[in-house]
Amino acid sequence: MRAVTIVDGEIVVREHPDPEPGAGELLVRVRAAGLNGADMLQRRGRYPAPPGSPPDIPGLELAGEVVACGPGATRFREGDRVMSIVGGGGQAELAVVHERVAMPVPEELDWPAAGGFPEVFTTAHDALFTQAGLASGERMLVHGAAGGVGTAAVQLGRAVGARVTATVRNESLRPAVAGLGATAIAPEGFGEHGPFDVILELVGAPNLQENVNALATGGRIVVIGIGAGAKGEIHLGALMGKRGTLRGSTLRSRPLEEKALTARAVERHVLPLLEADELRVPVAETFELDRAAEAYARFEAGGKLGKIVLTLA
Amino acid sequence: MRAVTIVDGEIVVREHPDPEPGAGELLVRVRAAGLNGADMLQRRGRYPAPPGSPPDIPGLELAGEVVACGPGATRFREGDRVMSIVGGGGQAELAVVHERVAMPVPEELDWPAAGGFPEVFTTAHDALFTQAGLASGERMLVHGAAGGVGTAAVQLGRAVGARVTATVRNESLRPAVAGLGATAIAPEGFGEHGPFDVILELVGAPNLQENVNALATGGRIVVIGIGAGAKGEIHLGALMGKRGTLRGSTLRSRPLEEKALTARAVERHVLPLLEADELRVPVAETFELDRAAEAYARFEAGGKLGKIVLTLA
Repeated sequence: MRAVTIVDGEIVVREHPDPEPGAGELLVRVRAAGLNGADMLQRRGRYPAPPGSPPDIPGLELAGEVVACGPGATRFREGDRVMSIVGGGGQAELAVVHERVAMPVPEELDWPAAGGFPEVFTTAHDALFTQAGLASGERMLVHGAAGGVGTAAVQLGRAVGARVTATVRNESLRPAVAGLGATAIAPEGFGEHGPFDVILELVGAPNLQENVNALATGGRIVVIGIGAGAKGEIHLGALMGKRGTLRGSTLRSRPLEEKALTARAVERHVLPLLEADELRVPVAETFELDRAAEAYARFEAGGKLGKIVLTLA
Repeated sequence: MRAVTIVDGEIVVREHPDPEPGAGELLVRVRAAGLNGADMLQRRGRYPAPPGSPPDIPGLELAGEVVACGPGATRFREGDRVMSIVGGGGQAELAVVHERVAMPVPEELDWPAAGGFPEVFTTAHDALFTQAGLASGERMLVHGAAGGVGTAAVQLGRAVGARVTATVRNESLRPAVAGLGATAIAPEGFGEHGPFDVILELVGAPNLQENVNALATGGRIVVIGIGAGAKGEIHLGALMGKRGTLRGSTLRSRPLEEKALTARAVERHVLPLLEADELRVPVAETFELDRAAEAYARFEAGGKLGKIVLTLA
């Protein structure tokens, strides 16, 4: 099979041995695979794939057809349309996923949308609901809302009856984010739009102090992106006064059973919203597999709304 | 009635009008009232009493006999032994408490122990269980474990089957803390004793970075004391890698219904441990009401194990 391959930091497409499904695993012919920020980090050697994932093939999500079931795999059959997060190796013609982490693809989703759905919607759902306990009526802030996780979070917050504010650095993207259901604002002085019950931090430490100050009593900050900086000062007295929570989270390093739980949560709580047309997967641009290097360049250039997705015939 | 009174930062005992119980409230003849760190802050004007509490009479906890029930108060009768946290005004011959926040005093507790119990055990129970979700088998660290909240936390952790490590700056107090069920260590280099699932921070920001580094995957830090410093740097990438939680909490500023919930939790989960002799309330020293200034001086001098309690005939 052919696969995107990281060679000394360069993105190339080359032949690899076909993977084989082990116990409980599915072999999937990949039809679409989204790009994520973690791929960019992995390319620079800063986010190695976890044990058990291909070390040199990036890709944290995919959608495609089941072509073979490993021993004991019973949730899906050959030909089923599935989508899944993976620890790595998603950007390839064939990939192996564990059946407990895979989800069915709703009819409403075409391949690019399905390939760009799992990572960002699972991440956003886990962060907002499992980690932060977002509830209806709450005031929610998303930092860096124009990207994949951001656009997912805005829509999920809106769908459950939260009041969503979103910071978007690129002014030209704010109308599109507003169209997803948020009040879209510039990052500067965001605290004046608070207080917020839940803050989803996709940008990093530079927002930390203002996040704490903008928190409502009992508010929760969940940090899942730190591209703009990892270290920041925090005033613990302010956090106590708010009875606030600061939590860090990642999806990739979790063990199989925890990833499977996130997939069940998405199946129960998010797929019905997709089927009811209350959510959409914003796809900024698709690239065929052979143009993977261009896709990476496009991702790193920024200024996009939603996902960059590789497609495979 | 006579009451401890803060006059320009000095501790005096003087006459005040008797308080009267309102709807749902109890008038209590106070027999013992513990001192807490917040009293020291209030004395210096840094922690004013919340609305509805006497502004100039300190005291966050008390134990005594019910002498009158306000309209609609039905949980207790005249003569009942009760103990309670209060927003302020506990260090007086008479105090008013809401019946939903009051708890019965178990037979096993004498007055000094009952007067020193509510604030620290409610605080420790809320922080460890409601805020941090401590569970059996987990590794727990308490910073500043020789004080009132610390000695309560060590015992509560031990009672539920957690493995408790405790930092104690004063070397001479470590054996006594160890006797409560902890591995008592010096604060320096505490991280080497980790990782920890739950860290109860009673000291402040200087421990912040090492706390995060010493956290187990999924670990929770709860900050309820910052006497040694309020501001610290945090590495959000490390917090993400641990999928860690940093939460600040206080008890005093909570609304009545939340304080009542903490009282119900203590009645259900802590009073049975007292009755079963699995907990004790370490009382370092008692002072009669007229010696309140001495009691405050003793509290501020530190180097004690457990509570300083005022007693009233």
